Amino acid sequence: MTKKQSQEGLTIKKEENFSEWYTQLITKAELADYSAIKGFMVIRPNAYSIWEILRDYFDKRIKSLGVRNAYFPLLIPESFFKREAEHAKGFSPEVAWISNREDERLAIRPTSETIMYDSYSRWIRSWKDLPLKINQWCNIVRWETKATRLFLRTREFLWQEGHCVYETKQECDEETRIYLKEYQKMCEEILAIPVLAGRKTEKEKFSGGLYTLSIEGIMPDGKSLQMATSHNLGQEFARSFKINFLDKKGKENIPWQNSWGFSTRTIGAIAMVHGDDKGLIIPPKLAYNKIVIIPLLFKGKEKEVLKKAKEINKKLNHFNPIFDDRDYSPGWKFNEWELKGIPIRIEIGPKDIEKKQVTLVRRDTNKKDQIKENKLAKEIDSLLIEIQKNLLEKAKKNLKEKIVEVKKISDLKKVIANKKIARTFFCGEIGCEDNIKDRANGASSLNFPFDEKEKGPCIFCEKEGAVCYFGKSY
Amino acid sequence: MTKKQSQEGLTIKKEENFSEWYTQLITKAELADYSAIKGFMVIRPNAYSIWEILRDYFDKRIKSLGVRNAYFPLLIPESFFKREAEHAKGFSPEVAWISNREDERLAIRPTSETIMYDSYSRWIRSWKDLPLKINQWCNIVRWETKATRLFLRTREFLWQEGHCVYETKQECDEETRIYLKEYQKMCEEILAIPVLAGRKTEKEKFSGGLYTLSIEGIMPDGKSLQMATSHNLGQEFARSFKINFLDKKGKENIPWQNSWGFSTRTIGAIAMVHGDDKGLIIPPKLAYNKIVIIPLLFKGKEKEVLKKAKEINKKLNHFNPIFDDRDYSPGWKFNEWELKGIPIRIEIGPKDIEKKQVTLVRRDTNKKDQIKENKLAKEIDSLLIEIQKNLLEKAKKNLKEKIVEVKKISDLKKVIANKKIARTFFCGEIGCEDNIKDRANGASSLNFPFDEKEKGPCIFCEKEGAVCYFGKSY
Repeated sequence: MTKKQSQEGLTIKKEENFSEWYTQLITKAELADYSAIKGFMVIRPNAYSIWEILRDYFDKRIKSLGVRNAYFPLLIPESFFKREAEHAKGFSPEVAWISNREDERLAIRPTSETIMYDSYSRWIRSWKDLPLKINQWCNIVRWETKATRLFLRTREFLWQEGHCVYETKQECDEETRIYLKEYQKMCEEILAIPVLAGRKTEKEKFSGGLYTLSIEGIMPDGKSLQMATSHNLGQEFARSFKINFLDKKGKENIPWQNSWGFSTRTIGAIAMVHGDDKGLIIPPKLAYNKIVIIPLLFKGKEKEVLKKAKEINKKLNHFNPIFDDRDYSPGWKFNEWELKGIPIRIEIGPKDIEKKQVTLVRRDTNKKDQIKENKLAKEIDSLLIEIQKNLLEKAKKNLKEKIVEVKKISDLKKVIANKKIARTFFCGEIGCEDNIKDRANGASSLNFPFDEKEKGPCIFCEKEGAVCYFGKSY
Repeated sequence: MTKKQSQEGLTIKKEENFSEWYTQLITKAELADYSAIKGFMVIRPNAYSIWEILRDYFDKRIKSLGVRNAYFPLLIPESFFKREAEHAKGFSPEVAWISNREDERLAIRPTSETIMYDSYSRWIRSWKDLPLKINQWCNIVRWETKATRLFLRTREFLWQEGHCVYETKQECDEETRIYLKEYQKMCEEILAIPVLAGRKTEKEKFSGGLYTLSIEGIMPDGKSLQMATSHNLGQEFARSFKINFLDKKGKENIPWQNSWGFSTRTIGAIAMVHGDDKGLIIPPKLAYNKIVIIPLLFKGKEKEVLKKAKEINKKLNHFNPIFDDRDYSPGWKFNEWELKGIPIRIEIGPKDIEKKQVTLVRRDTNKKDQIKENKLAKEIDSLLIEIQKNLLEKAKKNLKEKIVEVKKISDLKKVIANKKIARTFFCGEIGCEDNIKDRANGASSLNFPFDEKEKGPCIFCEKEGAVCYFGKSY
């Protein structure tokens, strides 16, 4: 029997060394691989299938909201960045430039506001052209200088970026919030990851925008991961790129814009939140293959077992089963598919056949059950729902345990040292936030959560502040 | 009433000035737009929706053949190109380089063989890892120096590239042909474009490969457009990138590889082949919106007509209708949706309501019919099939008319001057092909068609040759 690399399994426990465990998990479950160029990764089929399911889900949602997909150029002239000063400042350290082709340097897009809005300025004439709601699915390059972490910090990633234009601020405000709600729904219902939803501070908002809304996932190591953002860009980009429209009264006006996105980073969050010492656990709604069928080929019974297993495989075709009749031992196969996170394993042996049953094993709890053949499809259906629910419940419990109320900087520092997230009051001033970062182990604000009316003294300056989360961030 | 730019309609006839007509069609039907950077285009929603349908169709087909999707880095180290000399020679004039980030120059991918095979060399160990069948959907940059033609010749385009690895040459040969057949099927059944399928000559094959299979569409101006290619790469890339596998006997072996792709160019072909003086005609299978519903809001009857139109819109929801109740005249709207190529227009006026009918207009023939309301959905179903069929039939007829048999160089020259495609005998020698190009108005070979057993004297050297098509190419 041949041993494949991936089959070795994880040699590090999640509790022991989270960072090492994560890297092993991503590479051994064949989700991603390093590439020949520093900082770049290969997204392997096991992860790309997750991305496709996320894309198809979200794409359908935004299309139902009237958004249409398009594709804009990869390269952006340097002069475009300069038109919006704050934006240029925010992105220029991370830009990769092409300099052998045109007189002007061309940037590989670190985000597409400028190149898109140049087109928008030609497309928008009248209020009848608004709202304009366009999205693109594409690759992005940002030259990160910190160490590479697969999915979490790479120099290239895949994302979607929605870019809409509205007549009024009110419409723009409302829609900026609507897309964030869509992200939150996707995280909770599809990724089984609960999030903290709120408004970013001035320090942490998008360069050149008016304000940023975000959802933040809390990882098992106590760090937050920004899962998606939605920016109200105000009218500044429209001014810089000369986007105007004639309103119903024939008067020239400047429209309001937003942009919103999520990326392949979220795949890293799925691995971190749901993975265990055996490997990945794919939430059933994100699993391309929802089950794996393993015939137990005992000597002398091979033919009989294989026949029955194939029959069951055919019946369960709508779950897109992996049928594993390869020449490896059952134990080897169990490990392989546990490592790769397939939600349900089905074992079929001679004894099962005698009793007209199969053995079903849940990936999330390891619970084993014997199920009668005629009830199998129905049982799998409800088990997949149960697993999805269980993963979310567990993640919610973990999130709750990570949050600690604090009132003093010294306590904030301890909370951060203990790998937790602090819930405190904060005035929102950039100067205050810089001070907090300095004095509390590099803590940064996550966001001001929505729907929290409570007020209290800012943890640093003691002026009135609102509820705000602080923590270490990916 | 406001006039939008796009509503002006085409001012040039297809027969009059094909090239100008094409550019007007693409921009006025809002399929694509020029961008701020020379040679780059914006793919607008009307075209991107066609691309999405093509992608989803083809993706399903290749998944059923065992191919899995992945994503490899955008940037490729310069040294990778140098490992396969012919490949480097073929692509280097078109490469855009990043030089501000690493010691080594990094190319934006003009194709991904080298970066993918570097990973393959780490992933493939044994015959159990084969066949490895991976595809990616991505953007490509090739710095074209000739004038930009939207979709047809731009410096960036979208495509899919499949890259497979096999144990034997036979398997690789068979599969290289299978993917080409898939492309041919897609062109004929979905794009309604018949193609010439065959093997490329040595001069025209893929740089670094063993041989190239292609399908060629013939455009109304008599030029051929390569719709897709499938390359048997032989073992050279495997040698250069050190891809080896242990066979069943434990012996080290070099595998065989192929790569195959089609791109957003095909959208240009759809516009050229099916478009007319009124604008685009989208083959029904590629139309995101299969119908447009236009209520004829005669004064005093607005409410009644709108109510009925909305009712019908709801009933026909599965055709993804555009419901156009905007404040423009009916004639203005007819022109708009004819320009944009929606397959069927439905008009609903007070008289139609009286007679419990609607008026149905086919985009391809302009034929008008009154259809009873209760038979509408069924009628649309069969009409969409009929339009798809009619477009293919027309295109087949045009293709046939374009092909002329020739035996002498002087006749080939005339055929090319008359904007036709020549069918002749050719020996396949690169030297001969160079000579033919020089002497016959720049004619190049399209391919040696499959399944043609006939032999005859080469049009240039008179040695034995096989049937080959020659023409001008995009």
